[in-house]
Amino acid sequence: MKIAALAGGVGGAKLAQGLAAVLGPRELTVIVNTADDFDHLGLRICPDLDTVCYALGGISNPATGWGRHDETWNAMAELGRLGAPTWFRLGDRDLATHMERTRRLNLGQALSTITADFCAAWGVGQRVLPMTDDRVASILETDEGDLDFQEYFVQRAFQPRVRAIRFSGLENAAPAPAVLDALQGADGIILCPSNPFVSLAPILALPGVQSAVSAGRSIAVSPIVGGRAIKGPAAKMFVELGIPPSAQAVAEYYKGIIRALVIDDIDAVHAASISRLGILPLICNTLMHDRADRLQLAHQVLNFLTSGWQ
Amino acid sequence: MKIAALAGGVGGAKLAQGLAAVLGPRELTVIVNTADDFDHLGLRICPDLDTVCYALGGISNPATGWGRHDETWNAMAELGRLGAPTWFRLGDRDLATHMERTRRLNLGQALSTITADFCAAWGVGQRVLPMTDDRVASILETDEGDLDFQEYFVQRAFQPRVRAIRFSGLENAAPAPAVLDALQGADGIILCPSNPFVSLAPILALPGVQSAVSAGRSIAVSPIVGGRAIKGPAAKMFVELGIPPSAQAVAEYYKGIIRALVIDDIDAVHAASISRLGILPLICNTLMHDRADRLQLAHQVLNFLTSGWQ
Repeated sequence: MKIAALAGGVGGAKLAQGLAAVLGPRELTVIVNTADDFDHLGLRICPDLDTVCYALGGISNPATGWGRHDETWNAMAELGRLGAPTWFRLGDRDLATHMERTRRLNLGQALSTITADFCAAWGVGQRVLPMTDDRVASILETDEGDLDFQEYFVQRAFQPRVRAIRFSGLENAAPAPAVLDALQGADGIILCPSNPFVSLAPILALPGVQSAVSAGRSIAVSPIVGGRAIKGPAAKMFVELGIPPSAQAVAEYYKGIIRALVIDDIDAVHAASISRLGILPLICNTLMHDRADRLQLAHQVLNFLTSGWQ
Repeated sequence: MKIAALAGGVGGAKLAQGLAAVLGPRELTVIVNTADDFDHLGLRICPDLDTVCYALGGISNPATGWGRHDETWNAMAELGRLGAPTWFRLGDRDLATHMERTRRLNLGQALSTITADFCAAWGVGQRVLPMTDDRVASILETDEGDLDFQEYFVQRAFQPRVRAIRFSGLENAAPAPAVLDALQGADGIILCPSNPFVSLAPILALPGVQSAVSAGRSIAVSPIVGGRAIKGPAAKMFVELGIPPSAQAVAEYYKGIIRALVIDDIDAVHAASISRLGILPLICNTLMHDRADRLQLAHQVLNFLTSGWQ
């Protein structure tokens, strides 16, 4: 069974971990958002890519969902002492990832090549693909002006009100090598419970991606549960963009792209209206508090793809 | 009393520590070699400058003479895991120095400004000046071809045979602001027991420096003791450049620049011949094993500058 998953950061990483525990390593390809990548302290930082790779490599910090476990913070402490910006927390082990990636990018190597090598070093058997080797940047148009994504997300704790989102560089970006093949060759495509606006929209906007997803057996897991986002600003963005946040709103957002949507038990009330959109609702527990939850959700999604497909 | 000291790395840092313990902070300016600075892993690294600043700030590693005490090595360990070059050891705390310096240099700030701010953050009360704000690089012409200094010194453990040394960029470099003023206003100028060829020669070669040094009350401390270097390749370089290494050879090298040379008790036999070169020999213990040694040597040198000058 070949599965391609589209993922952002923490939510995507959790489901990817569940899928990785159920599938053989060569059965899973994770295509990861890179539109929130940014340059900081002279380093190229790819938060979603690292979160997914660290999770799959078993070297992530389970408490935060991002960064490394067994981490130290001595470089950061000394950077603070020297007056450097410290709002984006970089642990000592994590720093090595950004340093070596930056060094290799500066040598002209492709992000997808570097990522494949890093995965090999970290013991990640699954294939993890950045969505593109080109530079794309999410810009949040807010009531306080344009903000880079990490500025909005981390430094400002997503407090500014979002009016629109644009992706600089996306118009000239191409999917990374193997992205379209992975989608076209997949027995199932899973849109992880990541932010639709900032995590999955940029992947879907790459040439050929949306049509490959909508042509396949595509199933999304709603990142909105009971009208709220599990983590991050997804629900707040729905509100600010004029849409009441709900599993149904997610279904409407992905209409024409997905053929099924996994919604949480708590959102069972939306099943009929989602069904009327031509999207099959699958109701189960979607909260991933622990490893058992992640495994269970992965099983449910995969079962639906293999046996429940109509 | 105003003292200006010219320093390279470990030997210079040790004497600077001794001088700092004896003098008031505003009495000491240390002018530090930057010709062995280099770019590595995307970072601008200034080994001598950091060694001197860390020593004066009481945050150096006394066991190695370079780097930070209370250091961790997690970034380096992970860099190694990712296949990055690890021959130049960068601790996690130390990394912050290079990162923030590189960030500020890339903003167009001067190394001397950055160094002054770092010293304030580290509680270094003495003035530490990079010899220049311009980029200079030491190139070792060896029997194995041209090597960058750190490549020769750290990666190759100074094993290749040196034929000549050149300093790329030195022809267009100017002394950093305050360097010439510090030398001209000094009651005494001390050439620390650093490598004459690679640590002090580039400082002396900057426009105006050698004439300021030779016009002042200038005293060097021989880095050659009993025909050997305390640390590093100084003695080996003398041999390879065709000069038997000795305190006398140091005197000949600095002839016309210094007016006195501190030599170790073990080299008392050279006193008469050094004297015949027109350089006053001062004989004492010059080995700095511990804090007491550093203080004693600093006292000896300063006593000579104040009372022993003829």
